[in-house]
Amino acid sequence: MNAAEPLLEPLLRGEFRALGRAMSWMEDGHPGAPALMAALWPRLGRATVVGLTGAPGAGKSTLTDRLAQALRKEGLKVGILAVDPTSPFSGGAILGDRIRMGRIAPDPGVFIRSLATRGALGGLSRATQDAIDLLDAAGFDWILVETVGVGQDEVDVVSCVHTCCVVLVPGLGDEIQALKAGIMEVADLFVLNKADRDGVEQLEAEIEGMKSLAHGGPWDPPVFRTVAQLGQGVAEVIQGIREHGAWLRQGDGLARKARERARLRFEALLAEETVRRAKARAGSARLEAAIASIAAHAQDPYRAVGSFLDESPEPSGR
Amino acid sequence: MNAAEPLLEPLLRGEFRALGRAMSWMEDGHPGAPALMAALWPRLGRATVVGLTGAPGAGKSTLTDRLAQALRKEGLKVGILAVDPTSPFSGGAILGDRIRMGRIAPDPGVFIRSLATRGALGGLSRATQDAIDLLDAAGFDWILVETVGVGQDEVDVVSCVHTCCVVLVPGLGDEIQALKAGIMEVADLFVLNKADRDGVEQLEAEIEGMKSLAHGGPWDPPVFRTVAQLGQGVAEVIQGIREHGAWLRQGDGLARKARERARLRFEALLAEETVRRAKARAGSARLEAAIASIAAHAQDPYRAVGSFLDESPEPSGR
Repeated sequence: MNAAEPLLEPLLRGEFRALGRAMSWMEDGHPGAPALMAALWPRLGRATVVGLTGAPGAGKSTLTDRLAQALRKEGLKVGILAVDPTSPFSGGAILGDRIRMGRIAPDPGVFIRSLATRGALGGLSRATQDAIDLLDAAGFDWILVETVGVGQDEVDVVSCVHTCCVVLVPGLGDEIQALKAGIMEVADLFVLNKADRDGVEQLEAEIEGMKSLAHGGPWDPPVFRTVAQLGQGVAEVIQGIREHGAWLRQGDGLARKARERARLRFEALLAEETVRRAKARAGSARLEAAIASIAAHAQDPYRAVGSFLDESPEPSGR
Repeated sequence: MNAAEPLLEPLLRGEFRALGRAMSWMEDGHPGAPALMAALWPRLGRATVVGLTGAPGAGKSTLTDRLAQALRKEGLKVGILAVDPTSPFSGGAILGDRIRMGRIAPDPGVFIRSLATRGALGGLSRATQDAIDLLDAAGFDWILVETVGVGQDEVDVVSCVHTCCVVLVPGLGDEIQALKAGIMEVADLFVLNKADRDGVEQLEAEIEGMKSLAHGGPWDPPVFRTVAQLGQGVAEVIQGIREHGAWLRQGDGLARKARERARLRFEALLAEETVRRAKARAGSARLEAAIASIAAHAQDPYRAVGSFLDESPEPSGR
């Protein structure tokens, strides 16, 4: 526990500095991270976790902020996680945080963090899951996870929130329309944002058409219209999320989501940890030599990885 | 070699069926995949590999098809890889293939494949790299890799093609404009598509502004205007790609790209292989038990992964 100890109490009290530091620990793979997670683990499971996904330009950030404001009026504490895999290019996440903080903050009941971990494969998904847990432990009632909705990591993230809202807008291009067809599977709710634009009826008709083709699963995703910029329709979306939550709690939905999430976390951490151990055993000189042999076309990648692993086996009985 | 042997000769002759099967082998982790890659490895390095990235709706597919048509007129063989991480939702990749095949095909000089491998972390990036090698071995002169430009896998993919074209269009939303700022790092060429739309001057001015802020790296990315739908500006883009290629060959650019690509492939395969080995050692019953213990909040994920690995160590001396 040692390293995690000083962080634990302020974190459980919901102090922002402790929360920010704990998230950095998780993202950076700080040695204290596992102990901290172990200490938090028994206290988790209180928060409502909502995903908002959709193409760039759909107005997800604005909608997220409006949802947060409405929940604040009920006295609820809200955590916002903006998952942005494009930011590795730009460092844009941090800038984005500052801008948004200015819009909502200073409010001790809203914590905003952008996640754009570059590095280990699956690292973004893992860091997001850790951040959800930290916010949950810190007493945040709702956690809103906003993603651009493409990329493997993001698919993973939205597949295990409690309620996934797919945000669409009328009149975007063909590729975005094509994307819609696929999004049925993850949508618990549809939000047609910028609903004061032309084409909203057509978009709603298309969604209803897709729903009828989907043969009706156990939950029929409702469709809401919003104009997030003006705050229109936001209360109805919150109500819809609550109804979906109630439905989840009635059946085996929550247990299913928990299993999916557990699997995802296990897989992501397993990959990180096996790679970490393999590299530690082999040392960086052998790693660089293996990569150089591939670049020089002396060895193909499959063979290079095989010999890298076979030449530094794990000591038995560890 | 055994399993790979019957595939090798038809593949090297560029036969489409062999190429398609070999790609499936790589995607699915067929046992013959490593032997096939080993056999091909010494023959690689001939193809020009070009990335096209940009937001949905930028017209990348149309531009890619037009580039392919122009290259075909020179008698060159062209491979197209459409990397679409959204398709796991939809199965849309396969449908997309059929539609596009109809537009360009039947032409024995153009091979089109969509890649949307769901599954292992980093699997999409690895499958794309493998597909590039297969096309290269099969004698394709140019390989066009088209991506939506977001997501870790995609960032990885475009970071190691020879020439990366960033495709932008005038008049898209704020988030897309924000994305631009980050894309400077990977852009070797800018293509302003749908350049007959309002706002193209402003977009070009913004890009020039960003370029001047970027302090000028060793290569100054040129800006091209196209109307891909009408074929306008396509020849100039091909010329620009060739000039960038010549510049790469003059300096250490090609060697640098080869190192980046080798590192990426090694890391992705290392993660897959270490996870595969760890799971094989532990068996699926222990895997499922570990996941269930996380879902039941009996164990946190870090501890679960640690004991999963420690309780089935690799036999020493293997």
